Amino acid sequence: MAEKASPDLEKQALLHKSHDEEHFTSSDVVRDIIIGVSDGLTVPFALAAGLSGADVNSSIILIAGVAEVAAGAISMGLGGYLAAKSEADHYKRELKREEEEIINVPDIEAAECAEILAQYGVEPHEYDPVVNALRRNPQAWVDFMMKFELGLEKPDPMRALWSALTIALSYVVGGIVPLMPYVVIPYADQAVVASVVITLIALLIFGFVKGHFTGSQPFKSALQTALIGAVASAAAYSIAKLFRT
Amino acid sequence: MAEKASPDLEKQALLHKSHDEEHFTSSDVVRDIIIGVSDGLTVPFALAAGLSGADVNSSIILIAGVAEVAAGAISMGLGGYLAAKSEADHYKRELKREEEEIINVPDIEAAECAEILAQYGVEPHEYDPVVNALRRNPQAWVDFMMKFELGLEKPDPMRALWSALTIALSYVVGGIVPLMPYVVIPYADQAVVASVVITLIALLIFGFVKGHFTGSQPFKSALQTALIGAVASAAAYSIAKLFRT
Repeated sequence: MAEKASPDLEKQALLHKSHDEEHFTSSDVVRDIIIGVSDGLTVPFALAAGLSGADVNSSIILIAGVAEVAAGAISMGLGGYLAAKSEADHYKRELKREEEEIINVPDIEAAECAEILAQYGVEPHEYDPVVNALRRNPQAWVDFMMKFELGLEKPDPMRALWSALTIALSYVVGGIVPLMPYVVIPYADQAVVASVVITLIALLIFGFVKGHFTGSQPFKSALQTALIGAVASAAAYSIAKLFRT
Repeated sequence: MAEKASPDLEKQALLHKSHDEEHFTSSDVVRDIIIGVSDGLTVPFALAAGLSGADVNSSIILIAGVAEVAAGAISMGLGGYLAAKSEADHYKRELKREEEEIINVPDIEAAECAEILAQYGVEPHEYDPVVNALRRNPQAWVDFMMKFELGLEKPDPMRALWSALTIALSYVVGGIVPLMPYVVIPYADQAVVASVVITLIALLIFGFVKGHFTGSQPFKSALQTALIGAVASAAAYSIAKLFRT
């Protein structure tokens, strides 16, 4: 963003703004996919590896894995839905509170508004006209307080549902990868090797793509993501072996 | 918040403000505990119930459950750590970008700043003094843009670590509840009944407390939380039974 200043500043600023907002909306979906896939790749993988360490045969491991994927997808999906819904409810409650405060205690609200601008070294004679402009327009004043005092953005009503479906589906997609070998290989000690190889490759690729989308270094992200899978499955394996003996 | 206006407005506003901030910080920890406990109660519970539907004996169910708890706690804990760390990195990158923009393209930044205030119906002659005050003080200007243009708050450096430990520990605490019956009852068909009863009670209590802390209706929250557990375990049970036959 080292663009040169141009006369058409407002247009540039608007373009810049709409660009940022697009980035933010898509990052919600990307975040949901990341949450779903990374847990879906990691937990069923570690569970299956853990059970293979306890001499359980492939068919039981597969049943456990599939049951885990179903339970995890529903728990994360419904959990995501309720979390997004409760975020929307929280916004509504705070909006109502701000609206009441602006009617009942406008002077306190105006003082809070002044306090927000004073934090940035703006002097009373500089911010007073802005505070008065907001008092003139109660709807804009409420929006201003919601964003600037409470840091809350109006949530998208469809977001809760999409978030739930995206997380759940991503979890299932992620979970299928480590379980495939147990479908085709009946011996758990052979299936687990194939599962480890396939899943580590998937985690590396997924971590790389994740890094690319979230703006982190892709190689670092690839290694970190694979590390989580490796640590989780090593722990599950050790604990299962310990409990088996 | 229907308090009467008093002469000591600034003090009241400050009190109100510090109260809100306390609420926000504690809600991060509460959110981490909620994420950990609700998944910890739900997924191992559903997995164990699912496996019992596939005629697997208690000791294997217990191994699978414990392996799942270990894998889930590590995946969520490390996942939470990396998510919080990547949030902190994102903040640092955006901060650097804003700092550069303020130096390289101050007029565009000033126009963006004006645009933010104009959205709330503030007129140019009213917001110009504020924009000029910010230009006088680059550090405050950067902070203003970070919060009001990008909606980013400076993250706490210790937050990543605490978040990871809180989520992981909460997952383990939640996961112990549904698995206890499989420790003491060797017959899976009896253990699963005890597990369902204990876990549904735990989900109801947890949902109630969660509702209390997050400001939702406690009874509604109790029923919703128990419903997620019931749906997830019913799905896991059905799928495991299907795969077994």
